[in-house]
Formats: sequence, C-alpha cells, structure tokens
Amino acid sequence: MIRGVLLVTIRDKERIDDLQLHGLKLIQNTEKFCFGVDAVLLSDFADVKRNSKVLDIGTGSGIIPVLLAGKTKAAKIVGIEIQEEMAEMASRSVLMNRLSDRLEIVQGDIKLYREYFRKSSFDVVVSNPPYTNKGCGLVNPMDSKAISRHEILCSLEDVVSAAAALLVPGGQLAMVHRPERLADIICSMRNNGIEPKHLRLVHPKPGKKPNLLLIKGNRGGNPELKVMEPLYVYNSNGTYSDEINKIYGRAEEEKIERKG
Amino acid sequence: MIRGVLLVTIRDKERIDDLQLHGLKLIQNTEKFCFGVDAVLLSDFADVKRNSKVLDIGTGSGIIPVLLAGKTKAAKIVGIEIQEEMAEMASRSVLMNRLSDRLEIVQGDIKLYREYFRKSSFDVVVSNPPYTNKGCGLVNPMDSKAISRHEILCSLEDVVSAAAALLVPGGQLAMVHRPERLADIICSMRNNGIEPKHLRLVHPKPGKKPNLLLIKGNRGGNPELKVMEPLYVYNSNGTYSDEINKIYGRAEEEKIERKG
Repeated sequence: MIRGVLLVTIRDKERIDDLQLHGLKLIQNTEKFCFGVDAVLLSDFADVKRNSKVLDIGTGSGIIPVLLAGKTKAAKIVGIEIQEEMAEMASRSVLMNRLSDRLEIVQGDIKLYREYFRKSSFDVVVSNPPYTNKGCGLVNPMDSKAISRHEILCSLEDVVSAAAALLVPGGQLAMVHRPERLADIICSMRNNGIEPKHLRLVHPKPGKKPNLLLIKGNRGGNPELKVMEPLYVYNSNGTYSDEINKIYGRAEEEKIERKG
Repeated sequence: MIRGVLLVTIRDKERIDDLQLHGLKLIQNTEKFCFGVDAVLLSDFADVKRNSKVLDIGTGSGIIPVLLAGKTKAAKIVGIEIQEEMAEMASRSVLMNRLSDRLEIVQGDIKLYREYFRKSSFDVVVSNPPYTNKGCGLVNPMDSKAISRHEILCSLEDVVSAAAALLVPGGQLAMVHRPERLADIICSMRNNGIEPKHLRLVHPKPGKKPNLLLIKGNRGGNPELKVMEPLYVYNSNGTYSDEINKIYGRAEEEKIERKG
C-alpha cells in the first residue's frame, strides 16, 4: 500500500515546533502570538474523557486541539478562530499531524456560534481567551498579536455565553486566564448557568503571587468551588517543578538522565 | 486620684485568655465556640485606618473588636452579635480591657441593621461569618456552637447586604471564609455593589490546598481582583511560618529566645 506523500506549505516567517508528544508538531508564525505555558497547562487541566466532543474557542495556532488530540481519546476536537491567517495556519498543522479525522479548524466568530454549531453539542469547551479588557492599554487593533492578547474581537462574556449554549447539561468549561479577572470569570460563569467547580492558581514559584489561573465549571452544577493545591512552575531554586516536568512529559527523560 | 476597682464577673465554664497584645484579655466559654486563627488573620488583613469606624458582624466572644482595638487607631469599633449570652460575655471582655470608650457590643440581628445603625456610617466592616450553608450536615439549631458555625441565624448574603448598606462609599468589607464559598462570596459582593479587590488564600503549609480565604472588597470599587501571595500557617517542617509568628506578635519573643 502506498501511504502517499504529505505536502504541507510552510510560509515565510513560519517555523515548525516539535511538541515532544507522540511526534506532534505545530506551525507557528514567529511574528505573531506564539503559544506559552498557559496552553499546555490548560490542555492538562481540562477533563476530556474518551469519545467526548471538545471545542476550543479562540484556538489561534491550534496548539490546544493538537495537544488534546495527542493526550486524550476525544472523538472530535474543533478549534474556532476568527483570524483568517491564523485559522489557515492551524489547519495546516492539523494536516501535518495527520489529525484531520478527529480535529477540525473552523474560521469564524464565536459570537455567531449558532451558524457553525448545534446547541448542547459539546462535552467540553476549553479556552485560553484574550487576556486584557477591551480598551485597556495602547493597542493597535489591526495587529494580530493585539487580537490574541486583548479582548478586541472576543470578550470573556462572549466565550462564557457561547460555552453555556454549546455545552451539554453537566458539560465542562475549562479556561486559563489572569488572576485579576477571577471575579469577572466567576460572575460571568454563574450568570450564564455554568457553576465554577475547580480553581487552581499557578504561581511562578512557592511564596509568589499567582500569575495565571485555571478554572473549570459545569453547566448546571451545584455551588461549591474546590480551590486546589497551588501549581508552582519553578521550584525555589529556579529549576522546573516536578509537576511541570510531568505535564510537559519530561519526567521520564529526567529519570533517565539521573540514572545515566 | 482613686482609679477604682474593676469588678468583672467570670461565670462557670468560662476562662480568661491572654491575647499577648498590649495586655489584652478575652473571656471565652469553653463549652461554646472559641476563636481560632481565622479571627486573628482577619484582624491583621483588614485595613483599619486611624480614626475610622469599624463594625464586626457576628462578633461572638468579641475577639475581633478586642484585637482591632489593640492593633489599630480606630476611633470606634462596634461588634454585633445575635446570641444574647455571647453578646453579654463579649461586653464583659470590653469592660475587663477598659475599652468601653472605643468599643461597643450590640446584641441584635444584623438583618435588622436599620434599627441599630445609620446607613453609610462605617469605614470598614469585618466578618468571620458562620462557615457552612444553612441545612448542610446534621445540626442542632439550638446549640450555640452550631449557630456560630452554620448559617442558621445569619447567611453570607445577610452579611454582605448589610455591609453594602452600612459602608461609606469606598468603604471596605473584609471577610475570612472557607475556599469552597469563594464563588458565592464574589457573586454576593458584586451583586451588592461591593467589588472584590484583594484575595489571599491561607494554606496549612506550602503545596497544600488552602483551607481559609481572606477577601477584601470596596463599596463601588472598579473591577480588578488582586490575588495576593499565599499565606502559609506552617512551614514544610511543621514550625510556624515567619509571617504567622509576626501576625501573632511572636517575632520579637523568638529573637530574644534565640539570643538567650
């Protein structure tokens, strides 16, 4: 059987990153927003069960769907991205990873979710939404980095209200965000019928203020928020914490190094 | 000048605790709810400025007003307590500490706050409210420990809505509570026009889940919650953390002990 030759275009300013996970790779544009630890942490934090359907709102380069495809047994993963160039690049990453049967990129505006998706059709919605309030700071709204970083084309409320409509009853919304938006996130979730159930704060190191938060809520859940143990990115001595190494799949390498 | 003799009744089952702060003492009933680390942390966490007026909702033994009287330059501190016996005992602690000019205990129901206080008449409201939801667990509602621990006579919403009415614009509500109520607290504050501004999680030790939260909000504040660095009660080796020693005023004693 001839398996065929896979031809994927890599454009100017683009690079291919090895995700160190089952050989998965990602195309990124070095001049645009590149994924960070937040996307990796969120992919690990969301509870994606076998055969579930997952939606990533504001998928960007497609990093979260590609990681979830590698880490989980989800039946179907969809990433929606409003920026045409980003969505096209993410689609090429799907192709490059031969994930087209499970993973789909939709170019579109989540505010118009009714045009693309049926109500109550996802088990899990994940999102690493833009981090700052619309109108905060000096922003060039035409810049794609700005669109990825600021709430220019999509607000927190847009993400939560779309998730509330698209999740099955009991379905999970998992987000990564900045701690200063915690009150906004909790109120937006509850106002949309998604009850916050798990909160995990991510600290650069023990004793330092958190600089990221991970939050999971369930559509129609009962009130009671579990605040989990802190996640430290670095140990006090500046090395990566064991948990971060585990999330990045580096635990085994470390063990081997120690033996050697 | 004759300074007079201070006669304070100490009843059966009561004991006098030395608060280790400017010679302040507190009467407690060993068969009722006794104060814990939460009251001490809250007294330290609230921002009580010189000449301010402070209200403690659900004051119990009066531990928080007595600590605030010792630690701050507040002009007036009022504690309100619904249980008659507790309020009477707290009043005797006020007398014993010769604090009657600055500190007053009101026996009454915070739901009827209009009967006791004028609107917008406090700069700071503090509360260490009952910790569990009304109806959770097996509770004898006539038991004063149960009243102090459960939302039998006063709900979270009662505390927050009374604070919203009694605080001056910009005034601060500071509370200590359980982390599982974080979503309820944030939503209740925001719904009552008190914007959550500072959140501090209290962990038994580094790497463990938080078991208390400290939260401060301002009446009419702008959205943006600062999540502070964690507060650890114990170090990893089981000794009290430096910060706890400092809050309890033990830093100096320790130094002296080390020297000796």
